[in-house]
Amino acid sequence: MITVLIKSFNALGIESPTILLDKRKVLRNIDVMIAKADSNQTRLRPHFKTHQSAEVGQWFRQRGVDGITVSSIDMAEYFAGSGWGDITIAFPVNPLQIHRIDQLAGRISTLNLLVESAEMVAFLAQNLTSQVHLWLKIDAGYHRTGLEWHDLAQIRLVAQAVIDAPNLFLGGLLTHSGHTYTAGSAKQVAIIYDEVLRRLAKIQDELRLVGINAAISVGDTPGCAILEELGPVDEIRPGNFVFFDLTQHQIGACGTDEIAVAVACPVVAKHADRGQLILYGGAVHLSKDSLKLADGRVIFGRIARLTENGWGPVIEDAAVVSLSQEHGIVSAGVELLEQIQVGDIVMILPVHSCLTVNLHRYYLTTDGDVIEKL
Amino acid sequence: MITVLIKSFNALGIESPTILLDKRKVLRNIDVMIAKADSNQTRLRPHFKTHQSAEVGQWFRQRGVDGITVSSIDMAEYFAGSGWGDITIAFPVNPLQIHRIDQLAGRISTLNLLVESAEMVAFLAQNLTSQVHLWLKIDAGYHRTGLEWHDLAQIRLVAQAVIDAPNLFLGGLLTHSGHTYTAGSAKQVAIIYDEVLRRLAKIQDELRLVGINAAISVGDTPGCAILEELGPVDEIRPGNFVFFDLTQHQIGACGTDEIAVAVACPVVAKHADRGQLILYGGAVHLSKDSLKLADGRVIFGRIARLTENGWGPVIEDAAVVSLSQEHGIVSAGVELLEQIQVGDIVMILPVHSCLTVNLHRYYLTTDGDVIEKL
Repeated sequence: MITVLIKSFNALGIESPTILLDKRKVLRNIDVMIAKADSNQTRLRPHFKTHQSAEVGQWFRQRGVDGITVSSIDMAEYFAGSGWGDITIAFPVNPLQIHRIDQLAGRISTLNLLVESAEMVAFLAQNLTSQVHLWLKIDAGYHRTGLEWHDLAQIRLVAQAVIDAPNLFLGGLLTHSGHTYTAGSAKQVAIIYDEVLRRLAKIQDELRLVGINAAISVGDTPGCAILEELGPVDEIRPGNFVFFDLTQHQIGACGTDEIAVAVACPVVAKHADRGQLILYGGAVHLSKDSLKLADGRVIFGRIARLTENGWGPVIEDAAVVSLSQEHGIVSAGVELLEQIQVGDIVMILPVHSCLTVNLHRYYLTTDGDVIEKL
Repeated sequence: MITVLIKSFNALGIESPTILLDKRKVLRNIDVMIAKADSNQTRLRPHFKTHQSAEVGQWFRQRGVDGITVSSIDMAEYFAGSGWGDITIAFPVNPLQIHRIDQLAGRISTLNLLVESAEMVAFLAQNLTSQVHLWLKIDAGYHRTGLEWHDLAQIRLVAQAVIDAPNLFLGGLLTHSGHTYTAGSAKQVAIIYDEVLRRLAKIQDELRLVGINAAISVGDTPGCAILEELGPVDEIRPGNFVFFDLTQHQIGACGTDEIAVAVACPVVAKHADRGQLILYGGAVHLSKDSLKLADGRVIFGRIARLTENGWGPVIEDAAVVSLSQEHGIVSAGVELLEQIQVGDIVMILPVHSCLTVNLHRYYLTTDGDVIEKL
């Protein structure tokens, strides 16, 4: 047993739960989405809340991307600091941060904000000294935030308020179709995407009738990854596709071999009688987001083997079935249990990469490089 | 509306999701647990994974606590750095961190580790240059890790292996009754606690017959908070009680007025037609841990009002019903919806304070002080 414990020291020097990033997979995911935007003659404004890393951001910029999406002023300031000049904060304006918003607007070429009420437009008109671009957040069916898509009178009112303010510019209509995440199939994702697009096009037409030009911005990874034809949209804002995860795989948006991050976890105990491996790797390393499988089981991650240059395919008869703060419990088949010993490292593919990544302060690439993040 | 937005700037200067700590409640929670340990003539070795803060640790030390529990070598090193000399790492030994464990053992007076196999004892005997105390991790019914409580032959074998190694000392028997968390009632918690204690006492007796003295260490917040009589245990290791949370409240371990941390979240949108407030405060600020209420609803937090010196009582007809990465959706009754405006701050009482706290890099006390944490 002692030799088994010793042999397990690994080439990357991993000793505790560490998020590994496979740069080859990330670059492939980026290239595929850029090619799709190009072939659809639309602009890719990727959401950077998934990776939250200046260096990963550079990989997009090196491929010609020049505008990004974030979900907080903290992220916007961080990416402005690494040279991004065209940033959309895709989150309702938080009036308590108006001073930081105003400062940032004065510092970069284009700051895009989301509004959903004439009151907020008036607040921004009055409190911002710099110019910003406002996008009307449209609720096209997800029902989280936004102006109701069918309330054309209200939408016209808010659009006109933007146009009438000297320091505000109307960008257009922006929506997030988060309900594609609960779609049961790729076909259902396509149906939702088309419905959303028809609704936005209708608003666009109505505004045009009163002389208002509004661009259309959509974006969620399931829609953008699954559909080939993205329709007449001016911009797409997917984010998760950079890493993908098991949720996207279940929706049909990626293969498990496209998932580009995984958490390396030491095995600290083994209970063969219960068919379990105990990992150093819990809720504070993976997040408590879970996935309900077709057979009703709820899992917190799937397992792969650490290899010399990354990790292997998903092991079919194993999954993370329970998480405490620092412990993960893996239910594993007989074969895996025989092969894995205390002191080995196993790789956990995340259920929701955005939340998993958020729990870590840096990435380790499969080449052994450290990548900083926010 | 503009005046409403402006009035909402708050005395503490909160502008984004911030974890507030009510020091009065924390001190009361600490005092109550110390008094209980005293009246039971047992030792309190609090688990510091909940607060992960040197300063909160000092509040325990000022009250005479001199030994602590943590769940990782990182935490152990952090607290050793703030003067703690008697530390239990209540987690299976991770052989990949043996060098750091050995270093720490040489630096503090007493390092306690958990073992569950003779192989691990042999590994430690061979690889540690410093002396450590080993506790046999006993699985007394929770089925996460540990030696099966009824496998006396194996327990004796491991205990003897510890005794036979010159650099290892046998501390005793240690268990974590995590299954009290799924107990439906305070009475059920008491039944589990008693069963666990009987099982440990039986092992203790058996070991005594072969001349081995082993102390008993138990500890989970539901058991230690609910029971008045803790029985013949040498040490208790509860952790969550320092802050408590909605899960503990549901189990019956605390009142909602004893919950000592809450996340201050700005309101960024309001959809009165759907009975919803949208918060800047999502999974990255609260964690995705959820609570199933008696009526079947699943919630991610409950709501209170920010007051001048803390927060008020739980508002009955409101709860966080959905979380995205940065958004929280609150389902709220008519009255609350009328009173709360965009730009206001609402307080979210956490479902699981350990995971919520882990997402934040510092605390703000209700007196306006910043408290550092790991």
